[in-house]
Amino acid sequence: MSAIPATLPAAHRGPPPAPAQPGDDLAQVDTPALLLDLDVMEANLRGVHARIQAAGLRIRAHGKAHKCPPLALRQIDAGAQGICCQKVGEAEVFASWGVQDILVTNQVVGPAKAERAARLAGQVRLAVCLDDAAQVAVLAQAARRHGTQLGVLVELDVGQGRCGVADPAAVVALAQAIEAQAPALAFRGLQAYRGSAQHLREPQARRQAVEQACAQVRTIVQALAARGLSCELVTGGGTGSYLYELESGLYNEVQPGSYVLMDTDYGANQPDPQAPALGHALSAWCTVISAQGERAVLDGGLKAFAVDAGLPRVLAPGWKVSSLSDEHTVIVKDGGARPLAVGERVRLLPSHCDPTVNLHDWLVAVRGERVEHVWPVAARGALF
Amino acid sequence: MSAIPATLPAAHRGPPPAPAQPGDDLAQVDTPALLLDLDVMEANLRGVHARIQAAGLRIRAHGKAHKCPPLALRQIDAGAQGICCQKVGEAEVFASWGVQDILVTNQVVGPAKAERAARLAGQVRLAVCLDDAAQVAVLAQAARRHGTQLGVLVELDVGQGRCGVADPAAVVALAQAIEAQAPALAFRGLQAYRGSAQHLREPQARRQAVEQACAQVRTIVQALAARGLSCELVTGGGTGSYLYELESGLYNEVQPGSYVLMDTDYGANQPDPQAPALGHALSAWCTVISAQGERAVLDGGLKAFAVDAGLPRVLAPGWKVSSLSDEHTVIVKDGGARPLAVGERVRLLPSHCDPTVNLHDWLVAVRGERVEHVWPVAARGALF
Repeated sequence: MSAIPATLPAAHRGPPPAPAQPGDDLAQVDTPALLLDLDVMEANLRGVHARIQAAGLRIRAHGKAHKCPPLALRQIDAGAQGICCQKVGEAEVFASWGVQDILVTNQVVGPAKAERAARLAGQVRLAVCLDDAAQVAVLAQAARRHGTQLGVLVELDVGQGRCGVADPAAVVALAQAIEAQAPALAFRGLQAYRGSAQHLREPQARRQAVEQACAQVRTIVQALAARGLSCELVTGGGTGSYLYELESGLYNEVQPGSYVLMDTDYGANQPDPQAPALGHALSAWCTVISAQGERAVLDGGLKAFAVDAGLPRVLAPGWKVSSLSDEHTVIVKDGGARPLAVGERVRLLPSHCDPTVNLHDWLVAVRGERVEHVWPVAARGALF
Repeated sequence: MSAIPATLPAAHRGPPPAPAQPGDDLAQVDTPALLLDLDVMEANLRGVHARIQAAGLRIRAHGKAHKCPPLALRQIDAGAQGICCQKVGEAEVFASWGVQDILVTNQVVGPAKAERAARLAGQVRLAVCLDDAAQVAVLAQAARRHGTQLGVLVELDVGQGRCGVADPAAVVALAQAIEAQAPALAFRGLQAYRGSAQHLREPQARRQAVEQACAQVRTIVQALAARGLSCELVTGGGTGSYLYELESGLYNEVQPGSYVLMDTDYGANQPDPQAPALGHALSAWCTVISAQGERAVLDGGLKAFAVDAGLPRVLAPGWKVSSLSDEHTVIVKDGGARPLAVGERVRLLPSHCDPTVNLHDWLVAVRGERVEHVWPVAARGALF
């Protein structure tokens, strides 16, 4: 007899179980879980937003870093114009929580996604990017079908070597093609993000990379202006570089994302002396599940931490991370550590916040040792 | 005025949107998505199960590899005794879909998880592992509170250098401590998995590693027998090594997981001439979102592929993967490739199936070019 019921449950499982409840002590939080230190997060938010606002630019916080709508709403409350994200599916989730101004900083390709973007443009102020003429008609048709207007930015390749157009004439041609589809489409400006600048360790190197990008962007803005095309938005910049976009006189908004959480990869940057200090607001909370003298094993591994930017750092004095496997992190003594017993908890700092948060369903927002909120990473897994 | 509503939505978002519907053509599947080739998967299943059954052992398929209950039910239909998994949360999900015999091949630590395990033991045949005396009382108290019996295995360290006990006297002491808690706990046997053997490239090296493990296990089984303790289960083995556990005369069940999906890390093993051939049943389906001559960019990156075991392999002739960032995979020409246009689809083979599947909410099960099922990765993210 088959083990397979004739009718399988139609749905996915329900909402994922949460590791904590508001009001819990830290000791009651089940593991592995991601902790968000609210005091540190708020200081990061205040410091960076004040710096950007003092320069007179708009803040468009990058939601891809945290995928957490309640956190996005706090960024907006603290002065962000809106958010950006990378996927239409993320935009849908943020919109459903009340975010009103969203930029998808990525190419939106294919009729299915164009359809969803066009529908969403009827509910919030939405813009998307493109770098290929073939997408203009696809987006326009979808917007006409829904009777909406989609904002469109042309993505530039300003030295990232990934998506985007570098040739000024090609940018002008795309902008004209977009304008030709008015009112279904509206040319909104330029997405010019130099991701490869963000983790150059020396501030001077980051500044130079951004200055090179700015020279390119300036030429393109002038080429557009010469054809009567103005850029409502010149947008880009990240946690590692935003200071330099602020100084450019060219960008009118910046898109930092990781600043609010911080990870050890950004922590390894030598900070610019003029930048507000950033603290590690994000950590992981793990339990020792095996204690073998010089070695202890924690209950989160590759399914709890992204390792593309290196191993996480354990905050237990005298211990260091040795290796990760799917469900385990092995830590070993590194000096005069006190032993760890089975059941003890330790914190770790993730190396790369964006793909780490994407592994978790919840952010446990703590103030000191007390859980204040348990926030859903509601756009987690919104891949398309 | 604050952007934050007085009352935030209480729930997580609802079930995640699916990239396809049964009956769709492959061209209609939204991207990035994971494809499961049913013909290849079924051949993997038949080949491996036949080989294990011919040796007279039981199959306990490892659910951590796929986290997908409908796939687990097919493994059981094809002769598996039950499944194993790594987390109580995974066990809860599999149980809710009708899996009746579950082994958590990991330490279950702390009162909260013991509580849930004890509750679940009232619904399915459940066993968990431990390697520390402190857990015996915690598990027993929980089982008594629920009036259930929890099966308990002692995890051995058979050369993995992670969790587990190596000393025979310590194993005997743990088994006696477990037996002393009858009927709340029942000593069921030994979990003896040598993970480090699985990816040794030469079959002879894998065989030797397992033979070393077996020598240890044999000593421990004898030490237990000398105290009147018998092992209902001696369980372990994986896709890379199960042939050698089959020959041991010592193990009575094996726990392969990746065999059903396969990834390029297992594909890089030199196969044992006696092993049934395994095909890559799992692939990722991506769209070209930017085409820049010698370079094309795909719409899945670090949030669609785990890279702990290397980059994914693209199946477009003449192209190779160059780099991944959070949302993008850059592929470059590598010989006489035909150009790729924006909107085209390509397949990629993941390097490590377990943490890759954990990034996705659905497996799109295809037969040829047609979607037969869209199966939820219902235990995805079940971290605790």
